[in-house]
This record gives sequence, C-alpha cells and structure tokens, in this order.
Amino acid sequence: MCLQPVFINNERLMTRLFKLAEIGAHPGGGATRLALTTEDKEGRDMVVHWMRELDLDIKIDSVGNIFGIPKRVGDKKIILMGSHLDTVGNAGIYDGCLGVLAGLEVLETLKESSITTAKPVGLVIFTNEEGVRFQPDMMGSLVFAGGLSPEKAWESRATDAGTTFKENLEKTGYLGDTGSGDIQVEAYLELHVEQGPVLDREAISIGAVEGVQGIDWTRYEFYGTQNHAGTTPMTMRQDALAAASKLVSYTHNICLETGGGQVGTVGALEVKPNLINVIPDFVSLVTDLRNTDEAALKRTREQVSGFAAATARQAGLKILETQLVRLAPVEFDRQLVDKITGKAEEMGLKVKKMWSGAGHDAQMVARIAPAAMIFIPSKNGVSHSVNEYSAPADIENGCNLLLQTVLEL
Amino acid sequence: MCLQPVFINNERLMTRLFKLAEIGAHPGGGATRLALTTEDKEGRDMVVHWMRELDLDIKIDSVGNIFGIPKRVGDKKIILMGSHLDTVGNAGIYDGCLGVLAGLEVLETLKESSITTAKPVGLVIFTNEEGVRFQPDMMGSLVFAGGLSPEKAWESRATDAGTTFKENLEKTGYLGDTGSGDIQVEAYLELHVEQGPVLDREAISIGAVEGVQGIDWTRYEFYGTQNHAGTTPMTMRQDALAAASKLVSYTHNICLETGGGQVGTVGALEVKPNLINVIPDFVSLVTDLRNTDEAALKRTREQVSGFAAATARQAGLKILETQLVRLAPVEFDRQLVDKITGKAEEMGLKVKKMWSGAGHDAQMVARIAPAAMIFIPSKNGVSHSVNEYSAPADIENGCNLLLQTVLEL
Repeated sequence: MCLQPVFINNERLMTRLFKLAEIGAHPGGGATRLALTTEDKEGRDMVVHWMRELDLDIKIDSVGNIFGIPKRVGDKKIILMGSHLDTVGNAGIYDGCLGVLAGLEVLETLKESSITTAKPVGLVIFTNEEGVRFQPDMMGSLVFAGGLSPEKAWESRATDAGTTFKENLEKTGYLGDTGSGDIQVEAYLELHVEQGPVLDREAISIGAVEGVQGIDWTRYEFYGTQNHAGTTPMTMRQDALAAASKLVSYTHNICLETGGGQVGTVGALEVKPNLINVIPDFVSLVTDLRNTDEAALKRTREQVSGFAAATARQAGLKILETQLVRLAPVEFDRQLVDKITGKAEEMGLKVKKMWSGAGHDAQMVARIAPAAMIFIPSKNGVSHSVNEYSAPADIENGCNLLLQTVLEL
Repeated sequence: MCLQPVFINNERLMTRLFKLAEIGAHPGGGATRLALTTEDKEGRDMVVHWMRELDLDIKIDSVGNIFGIPKRVGDKKIILMGSHLDTVGNAGIYDGCLGVLAGLEVLETLKESSITTAKPVGLVIFTNEEGVRFQPDMMGSLVFAGGLSPEKAWESRATDAGTTFKENLEKTGYLGDTGSGDIQVEAYLELHVEQGPVLDREAISIGAVEGVQGIDWTRYEFYGTQNHAGTTPMTMRQDALAAASKLVSYTHNICLETGGGQVGTVGALEVKPNLINVIPDFVSLVTDLRNTDEAALKRTREQVSGFAAATARQAGLKILETQLVRLAPVEFDRQLVDKITGKAEEMGLKVKKMWSGAGHDAQMVARIAPAAMIFIPSKNGVSHSVNEYSAPADIENGCNLLLQTVLEL
C-alpha cells in the first residue's frame, strides 16, 4: 500500500501537450478542434501515432472511440485511463487533452520502468465529448456505456455542415468495428482540469471527484406584444423582457437561498426585435440548474418553472417551456475515490473531495464500471476559453497521482 | 368660424400613398427608404414631381429639406404643412409619408376649388427624420429650427456606407442653397399616424397633440466575470445578467408605480458570451424613459440610475453609464391645439387631446413657430413595422381636418 518509487516525465508530457495544441491553434493562444473536423482528425492521428510507438494495439469502435490496449490481453478486464481530444470553439489546450496525454504518459512510464501490472492498463480517447458540433455531448462514452445506440449517434448532424456523424467518422477514417463487448473495464480513471475556481482559490492541488452534478437545462420562451416604447401606456404592455428578467433574477436568487450545492445560471438570452424604442415581443432564455442532490435539483426546477408560469400569466404573456437536457447526478465509485484521496495524502498533496459541476466521460463509463476522476486546479477557474491554464507543477502532481492510483489497482 | 364646404379627394391621396409605397417595397408589404439612399431619392423625386404639377416653387435648403411654396410669396409668413419621406428598415407606408401627401392633397384641393387663402400655404419634406442611417434623428427639422448647424449635420456618417451626410446630399441632388431665413413660418401643422394604441383602442378618430414627451436614453454596461455555470459556487459569482435583469425589472416597475404618463422600456439588451453554460461577464442594455413632465422624467432617471449603481456594487460588478439621448418635453402651441380640437368637434369627429410618445419634426419647428400635430389611429398601435396600418376613412378624416384647420388659419 506504499507509494512506488516511480515518476512520470513531466517534460515529455508538457511537450506533447504543446505539440497537440499546435493543431487548430489560435495566434493569441488556445486551439479549436471541434469533433471530427480536419483539426480533430489531425490531433487524433498524432496521439494514435504516439500510442503505436508504445506498441499498443489500436482498436476503434463504431463511434470512433480509440482504445490503446496492451497486446495479448485476451478477455481480461482492463484498467482504463482516458478522456477526449475534441474541443469547444476558442478553447484552451488542457480540457480533455490532458487526461488523454496523462494516460499515455503513465503507460510510457510503466513501460520505461519495465513494470508489469497484474491487470492490463489501457488508454481511451472518447469521441465528441464537448457536443458542440454533434449532439448530444459525451456521445462516445455514452455509446460505449450502452446509453445510446451507435445507429442513433450516426444520425446526429453537424451543426456547421449538416453532414451526419457517420459520414464524418468515415471521412476522418475513424469508423471502426470494435464491438462494445470487446473491451471489458475493470476501472476507469480520468484526470481533468477542474474548470472551476475552487481548487485554485483554496490553494489545493488535487480534487478527488465524488461524482458529477445532476443538470437541468430548460428553455423558456416568452411571447408578448411588440409596441412603441414611447406611445404605449405601461398598463397596456405585454413586455416579454420585463417578464423574462424577473425569471433571471428569481433563478439567481432561489439558487443562492437554497444553498447546499445548488447552482443556477441564465447564460443565454435572446431578445426580439432588440431595438431601443420597441417593446420586446419575444425573449428566449435557458436556465442551467445543477445539484449533487437529485431531489433538491427537481425541487429547484419546479420552483423556477412555477415562477416562470406565474410571471407570464400576470404579465399577460404566452410562455413555452422546453426541456433541453436532464441528467441525474452520477456518483463515482466510493472505494476508488477513497483510493485517490489516500494516495494523494501519501504523496503529501493537499486533496479535497468535491463534486464536478461539468459533465465528463467518466460519468458515462460509471454506468458499466467503477469510475472516478482526479481534478487539478484551473487558474481563476477559467475554462472553455483560450485563457484556460493549469500550472505544470499541478499537472505533474496530477499525473503522478494517476500513476500511483493505477499501480495501487 | 364655420366649416368650409370643401373636401379633399381621398382616392387621389390613397393612390399617391400606394404609388410612393412601391419604391423600396417589400414583397410582403411595407417599404424601406432609409434617408438619402437611392430609394429615398426616388421617393423624393416622385413627390417633387407632384409638387411641380401644382405649380409650386421648389426650394431646397442646405440639408435637403424640400419646400413647396406658392409663387410670388415674397417675405410673407407661410402656413407650413409637412412631415418626412424617409423610413426605418422594414417600415410601414404611413409614418411620415402620410403627412407629406396629406399636405399635398390640401394644396391640390385648395387649387382645384380656386380658394385663395389670406396667408400663403406651403409644404415641407424634412430630411432624415428617422435617424436610422444618419444621427441624430429629426435632423432636417432640427437644422431648420436652428438647433444644429448645417456644417455639423454634413459631417454625420452613414451607418451603412461611412459616407458623409453632405456627400449623400450631393449624390442624390438634394444639396440646396435656400437659407434658413428664406422661409418664414406663420404656423406648422403635421398630420401623422399615432404609432401607439390609444386612439385605436378607445375608438377615437383624432388626436389633437398637445406636445411631445421628453425622452431619456441611457446605456448601462455591466462588467462581471466569465465562469463555468456548473463549477462556480453561487457566492463566488459576478454574474452580469443576474444584475442587469434586476435593472430591467426595476425600470418596468418604477414606471408602473410612478404613473402619470411616465413610461419606461428596456428594448435592447445584449449578453456576452451568451452561452447556456457560461456565466455572462457582460451585459449592455438601454433604458428608454419618457414623460410629458420634465421634473418627473429627471426624477425617474435618477431612481433608475441609482438602482443600477447600487445593484452593480452589491454584485461586485463594474458598471458604465452613458447618456445616449436626452430631450426635454416639447409643448405645442395651445391656441393651435384648441383650433384643431374645435374643428374636429365641428366636423363631428371624436377627438382626444394627447401627448406624443414618439419624436416628430413638429417638435423641432415648435422652437421657431407655433406648431401642432393631428394624429389618426394606428391599428393595434403598430408602427415601425410592415404591419403598420391606418384605415382610409381615418386618413380622410385627418386630411379634411388638416384642410379645415388651414382654412381657419
């Protein structure tokens, strides 16, 4: 149960991270490689090349998930590390890529050190985690976990080109034939940047992720009456924005008051016709509610939904409510979380058990195998931005912890 | 003081209105003729042609205002009717055009009936009333009234092409040399659609306009911190939209509570980055406040401004406040308003004294001469829209009232 005297090569890991970041790079920093674009293909090809150099068997499944497996595994269950390589638009260089390259680094360190583990250790690159170009997000891991059929995934259409997911798999050369049963997972470990401010603000090196918050995205559309802002008496108005703004305030306030891990945001709001002197007749907004507690999340959603309906009624507006996303909270394997926490402490790292506010492939794999995640700090909590940054020392700590956890398993 | 037994030819007026509406027409109705575009020039040319047919002297001033004056007027003061021909984008066919063509119809009726008035009667087409393509709005009448120098107006740049107002005057052939002192106004009368719902809802034919509301446009920009909607605790947020939405609600509510002609609208609001799962770090909105009472308008603006600052401070946001427009209320000539009301009653028309919520050329002319306006109903109060509509019977009543008022003067 002690730490093994073996360490990853952080210079090699960082070099690869920056090398990968050159593909789809922006002049000012960051990179964009939306799922199954030319850039994503190039990124995948690069990492597959590095996997082959480690003499791994490369297996591709029906939705383009890439597995790097030791040769002669047979039907043994595999300790799988991984994440994704696709990005959002104007992304940073850490989200996803770090988890894949850290797994690769662990495999290379094991090989270099001539360590043979009792159980085989492999690496996975899941397709289309971000869900920007094809919906739903976390698509590859969802199909791998049996939550979505490959056929259904294939039909998804690219938001930019209108071509299908399957056509894009074929075009990029990542439509494989590895079946869902061909990879048996003993445990799944994913290293990831926190994408939130908690570790950075509290100066903690490691987050041992207990689970992923449940999430509720609901669109509310308010339909009022367009009128002249100067000539329409206040009592004769059906002002869609005046009503919608109450819902934005309410959502913020109810989440503040509820506390206990309840968060809520209105990030996207559209006004029509959006002219200074015209009373808006249409507002569309989406509430993003998250909680680690399913019952509390359900309650908050009901409160927000009830308030929206009452506000529209009082203002004489029509309202349309549409559920866009609903995912229950996912709890990771407690033993695995405890192992990560214990190893981090053994390594002398400050560690905090925490929930993830963002969705990750690990929550899908958790459906079929024990899964857990290791978080490292994101500077100022910034993510999905070219300003995303994690310090090399934190990356080294995280990757060494991944290595020690794998060895423990 | 009795009605004269003379009536306008409404068929001729309506025919001209529809003829003019063919220029810049949209397939689905309505028309767009932004100031000094090819379409606006074509519309002006058409009406000038009709003016010449009535044997009027055409005079063009330094900002393209077009005057149609009886010959041999000398330095007599003129009873001037008029409005504007330029439109907003996707406009209806009544706003502005009706006032010009009604004036033309009155002149034609007088000529046809061989009526010679004691005082000369003329027509004016003011340039760029809408202010969509060149700022400020009501530019032509503002210059005519001495509130803006021609040189300053000339410098205004087209929002679409970047060319100057003067260049556009030259290009369209409407840079004239009539001086500001060459036209002396005895009284100014403008027939216009209400652009609000009051007359239509109350089934009243005529609005005798007592004045134009004061107006205050102020932009508020909220600067927060962009963060992940899932991973950022509620207490660690600087959410620009949560704060801005409070200001929208407050503006609506304070105007409702204040009553007494106070109206307020947030019609335009922009959110950045405007993504569902990202806490907005920027919101820009403009409050549109109007009142007939200058002191009350000032008070409301101070309340809104104070609330905005306090809200930003509480939420830990930076805020930037910019005055975009500020016009004091304009009161029209009481005798003239009473004459309009009296004539309408003599004609058996339901008439209501009311304030205008929209800006009009008449408010500028009011600086230098007695001025007043006649409103006719706008169906459902809709304006600045291809759905703008006023019934032919209301147009006929309005134009006959204009004629009788001119005869009275």
